[in-house]
Amino acid sequence: MEFLEELRLMKEQLKFEGRFRLPKNFSNVVLSGLGGSGISARIFQEIYSKKPVSLVEGYEIPDFVSPSTLFISMSYSGNTEEVLAAAKAAKKRKAHVVTISSHGLLEGYGDQHVKIPRPDLQPRSSLVYLLMPLLNSFGLAGPKEIRESYGLLSGLDGNPEECYRHARSIARSDAIPVIYGSFPFRAVAYRWKTQFNENPKILAYSSSFPELNHNDTMALAHTYKKNEFYFMVFASRDKRINDRIHVTEKLTRSKFNIINPKGTSQLSRILYLVHYGDYLSYKLSSIRGINPTDVSYIEKLKTMLKKPKEGRKA
Amino acid sequence: MEFLEELRLMKEQLKFEGRFRLPKNFSNVVLSGLGGSGISARIFQEIYSKKPVSLVEGYEIPDFVSPSTLFISMSYSGNTEEVLAAAKAAKKRKAHVVTISSHGLLEGYGDQHVKIPRPDLQPRSSLVYLLMPLLNSFGLAGPKEIRESYGLLSGLDGNPEECYRHARSIARSDAIPVIYGSFPFRAVAYRWKTQFNENPKILAYSSSFPELNHNDTMALAHTYKKNEFYFMVFASRDKRINDRIHVTEKLTRSKFNIINPKGTSQLSRILYLVHYGDYLSYKLSSIRGINPTDVSYIEKLKTMLKKPKEGRKA
Repeated sequence: MEFLEELRLMKEQLKFEGRFRLPKNFSNVVLSGLGGSGISARIFQEIYSKKPVSLVEGYEIPDFVSPSTLFISMSYSGNTEEVLAAAKAAKKRKAHVVTISSHGLLEGYGDQHVKIPRPDLQPRSSLVYLLMPLLNSFGLAGPKEIRESYGLLSGLDGNPEECYRHARSIARSDAIPVIYGSFPFRAVAYRWKTQFNENPKILAYSSSFPELNHNDTMALAHTYKKNEFYFMVFASRDKRINDRIHVTEKLTRSKFNIINPKGTSQLSRILYLVHYGDYLSYKLSSIRGINPTDVSYIEKLKTMLKKPKEGRKA
Repeated sequence: MEFLEELRLMKEQLKFEGRFRLPKNFSNVVLSGLGGSGISARIFQEIYSKKPVSLVEGYEIPDFVSPSTLFISMSYSGNTEEVLAAAKAAKKRKAHVVTISSHGLLEGYGDQHVKIPRPDLQPRSSLVYLLMPLLNSFGLAGPKEIRESYGLLSGLDGNPEECYRHARSIARSDAIPVIYGSFPFRAVAYRWKTQFNENPKILAYSSSFPELNHNDTMALAHTYKKNEFYFMVFASRDKRINDRIHVTEKLTRSKFNIINPKGTSQLSRILYLVHYGDYLSYKLSSIRGINPTDVSYIEKLKTMLKKPKEGRKA
């Protein structure tokens, strides 16, 4: 499928009613997911805070996983090896395991399964499909937020010009994008980083306020090669954070390109920014003449890992 | 104090016997800390997994914080505004609040306080002071690990030549350091990034295996300006991770500078790598002719934030 077509489908995913039943008396939540499928886990971790939420981004699970753990395994393909290993381990500890995938081996692993209705997207283009079951099950998205989000995503689909402007600026100097987020957009900043990696295939980095005021700030004032980077910063509704953004920019004589999230609800502001980054990174691929859907090296890597002898250095 | 003198003091901090009493029946742990003081929180979060551990890196605390939460506020100065705000909020929710600092306002905030015996270090040079109370209280460091760690840090103090070699390579091309960690060295990779920011004052970035195989990999294969970066990768004892490192390097035709952690225990391997990065970043400061202890911009920022009108753009 064409990448642009995938992007335009994102808003339709808001209608996905997939959900699971919350087990009685769970005391903590563990989300397992990597790459494109892991972003929805990160967004959920950032906005849900009624119980402790931990992320698993590898093969191993934490010691505390027990029957009182709600363990949610997320993999669009259903075949991510780290996620399968972690789900198996969680099952052994008798955690309540929920699996979310479009197909794949993961389907058989859990106590409950949520099936994503389309198996033909890029995992990173199914972000809303992976997010909705979490929002639906935990009661985090009402019809009003969904409607507002739908409108905002449609708006970007119809006119992504503002996003494209940044793509052209980045392309002009072959700049390395750096994205600065802050709550509730820390996961979104990381999402942008990964979209720059996978769509136009360039290195990119993200960090967040206020943490970066304790380290990056010194570098911003003194580093070599600052002009090789293109800084994009999400505006915040928290005055203390916005003060930090403006003071940091002024003090370190940096050029921050401020991105203003539209929307009134938290969810729609998050999804607006996600989609903004999708268009920006798509446009940069197209300027670079790079196919945004090509993830052949990630696939090759998986194949080579199955034959470790050939893959390893002597 | 001279920065090198501070570095040589790190091993002596292993003798710090500060600890706090674990409350009865706590069901989760929340650590609040930023910058240099936050690194110890991140290391603890990575190696302790008997209960869910969450990090707070801002003013706000999660909704689940309650009387069954062990809330640990960490600030070397005891005056970090985000940490003070979070401690106050945790107190209101009747969490069991432990404070760790060398002095400052934080001292009066908690149910228990651990006082760090020296107030005259850089916060980032007090990493082991901030870490030991956590290890001591949770029973994570026995005399054998402490002894081994002491020996390894002494070894680096006596001969940091290997670390210096990387500093010279980075300086030769004004490269931007990128550090790739993996469990149990994800926090260490981030520590290196922050040390590059604060000591030689250059931009630097970190990420971790296997997550980076789902995004950075495509960029490593295709990005512009790859030669502007200097990739350092921590070797792992997990064969699956080491396979990933070697396959990624080969497949994407990258140059990974492998750093081999010495030591047999997890703690000493972690601290060896931390200290390795300290020397590397110190040497780079000295080659650049930059004072590693100068954090004036971080201090100026704090002052300007207290007078927001002057700091803000019109």
